[in-house]
Amino acid sequence: MKIENPNALTWHFSERAQKLQGSAIREILKITMRPEVISFAGGLPSPATFPIEEMKVAFDKVLTQQGKVALQYGPTDGYAPLREWVANSLSINGSKISMDQVLMVSGSQQGLDLLGKVLIDEGSKILVETPSYLGALQAFSLYGPDFVSVPTDDGGLIPDEVATLGKGARLLYSLPNFQNPTGRTMSVERRQTLVDICARLNLPLIEDDPYGALSYRSEPLPKMLNMNPDGVIYMGSFSKVLTPGIRLGYVVAPRALVDKMEQAKQATDLHTAQLTQMVVHEVVKDGFLDTHIPTIRQLYSDQCDAMLAALTTYFPSSATWTRPEGGMFIWVTLPKHIDTMKLLDEAIKQHVAFVPGAPFFANTPQSNTLRLSFVTVPPAKIREGIEILGKLIAAKL
Amino acid sequence: MKIENPNALTWHFSERAQKLQGSAIREILKITMRPEVISFAGGLPSPATFPIEEMKVAFDKVLTQQGKVALQYGPTDGYAPLREWVANSLSINGSKISMDQVLMVSGSQQGLDLLGKVLIDEGSKILVETPSYLGALQAFSLYGPDFVSVPTDDGGLIPDEVATLGKGARLLYSLPNFQNPTGRTMSVERRQTLVDICARLNLPLIEDDPYGALSYRSEPLPKMLNMNPDGVIYMGSFSKVLTPGIRLGYVVAPRALVDKMEQAKQATDLHTAQLTQMVVHEVVKDGFLDTHIPTIRQLYSDQCDAMLAALTTYFPSSATWTRPEGGMFIWVTLPKHIDTMKLLDEAIKQHVAFVPGAPFFANTPQSNTLRLSFVTVPPAKIREGIEILGKLIAAKL
Repeated sequence: MKIENPNALTWHFSERAQKLQGSAIREILKITMRPEVISFAGGLPSPATFPIEEMKVAFDKVLTQQGKVALQYGPTDGYAPLREWVANSLSINGSKISMDQVLMVSGSQQGLDLLGKVLIDEGSKILVETPSYLGALQAFSLYGPDFVSVPTDDGGLIPDEVATLGKGARLLYSLPNFQNPTGRTMSVERRQTLVDICARLNLPLIEDDPYGALSYRSEPLPKMLNMNPDGVIYMGSFSKVLTPGIRLGYVVAPRALVDKMEQAKQATDLHTAQLTQMVVHEVVKDGFLDTHIPTIRQLYSDQCDAMLAALTTYFPSSATWTRPEGGMFIWVTLPKHIDTMKLLDEAIKQHVAFVPGAPFFANTPQSNTLRLSFVTVPPAKIREGIEILGKLIAAKL
Repeated sequence: MKIENPNALTWHFSERAQKLQGSAIREILKITMRPEVISFAGGLPSPATFPIEEMKVAFDKVLTQQGKVALQYGPTDGYAPLREWVANSLSINGSKISMDQVLMVSGSQQGLDLLGKVLIDEGSKILVETPSYLGALQAFSLYGPDFVSVPTDDGGLIPDEVATLGKGARLLYSLPNFQNPTGRTMSVERRQTLVDICARLNLPLIEDDPYGALSYRSEPLPKMLNMNPDGVIYMGSFSKVLTPGIRLGYVVAPRALVDKMEQAKQATDLHTAQLTQMVVHEVVKDGFLDTHIPTIRQLYSDQCDAMLAALTTYFPSSATWTRPEGGMFIWVTLPKHIDTMKLLDEAIKQHVAFVPGAPFFANTPQSNTLRLSFVTVPPAKIREGIEILGKLIAAKL
């Protein structure tokens, strides 16, 4: 029994903290950690793809050769050779990115927080896709914006909608490659139109691209960053091509914005671990990703195919789903009367998990949607899990 | 020559971002990185104290034995065994700290940012010491508080002042051991009085303690956390006892606050690197710090003595300074007419650097103060640098 302490405080949280809630999805994810659960709920990459040996060698080398630098405080904008590597790797399609435009961050999520800090005031209008990445909605929410959901279709965000909705907005957040949660990809034509519209509206266009390298069927499409480096804020990450647990990503933006974000980052966490940046530079500098990424693509592509085949076999014809050309997610839309939050309760009882779609909507949720990840589950288990879900859905028709 | 891009944006930054400034101190620190400069300006621990070999062995062991876990996404509140280690190490003087009260953060600076996020609204009254740690002022500033500077004397913060100033405030930020920037320590009596006053006012009391283990002359004084775990928010760090470049600290607080901070952290950077936490746990779990910390104390204590002796020899009698019993800093007060920002310009021309005191004041700055760090400079260089400063000051009398 807890003894009441008369000195215990009554908390007065900030308004933004009062709006914070325990994420329903996080609670789900805790359940899905149990080994008996077939979980399509995670947003985690497959640990089978982690280059543990290469990391081990790199940690040893960096600590041996440059231990005192690696373990000391470092610059807020990041480890210069890695910033240069990022700049070079993004200097494609005729555009030159300079390392001055690169800010290293403690995972992309921190990039979102810093963007919110420097671009969003209470009540600022900001545009997001319908649906959008939940982590971005959470990060931006802390700064109290008015979210405007831009309509989408199977080709992703519809640029012409931005022309009317975007006036006076502070930013547009987009995820053009294999979007989280839908798996959708924007065409080159749409990208170019969107870049032009945003430039005309003086609207900062955020291109979040954690999955861009994980293209299954063809070469990745051109980045909006390269279409207009002076108007696009590009976000990249080592989480999906190397490992997520090291927390390392980057934001590439015009220098005026990088300056502000660097000042905000200094107040937020001083800098991202120097050792981690030096180790990642050591791992990637000689082209390791060129041979490593294809192995990830192959694994995920095979499992994506297995899930698409299982959906065709086991899901009723009244359900529809996306056919991603890369990334980690498939988005399913069920008949309107089915609430996937309730479906999840039933699924968990049968040891299958997914993420209900509602939390991914900034405004009106579509409660008949759900997100499936195929990357951490082997094909046989994918079929087993999708069959169980299919039966649960069929029982509701 | 840069070609103007007609698509370049005109930026509309948030109000908080417009108030952000490039830190004068950061610009100073860039200059002081030059090898010919004797720098008392840094807040960096001495790299001579970094346990590089122990870290290397631990990285190798963790990656070999638990690589897939260490490199995967991890829980937002932190690596459980390390949280438990922190809780146990703070369960002293009869109070029991539970691991549920521990949130791992990406360096103490992130703890400050998260506290600002969940406790400060625009215009909230918050109390800080006079002067206070600059990084805390920067972190809190982003959330737009009204700072109230609590008067201090040679014994640090004066608790009775809090009784009148603290009504309706959201938090009191204190650094009771070898404060940054003054090096001052609060007595046990003051700590107990402060804890009682804050409890009576329902005022959350932040006890920032990065230097607590670095006590030169005696055992560390009791922590305010242990005097009232239900009313004190304790902040600890591995930066000064292990290495800062890994960015690892912790906040210990009542569970209601930890819950809110955990939700805020999820939106801010998901979690702190799992690998780093596992490695630090591996390094510290069997008592390494018990033998390691005394070596840091000895080094810093010797250099502190060298600086105090040099100050007595070379500084004019109209200057006064603190005599720290631990930590990294000495605080100097010069005659009122001397502006240490201007003094710094002259000192840098003679290859000596320090940090002017003005930026450490939340309200009225005392421009005749300065902060000296003695931890990264060997004794002979300390004497040389202090002699140069002494002459520059003497010339102004």
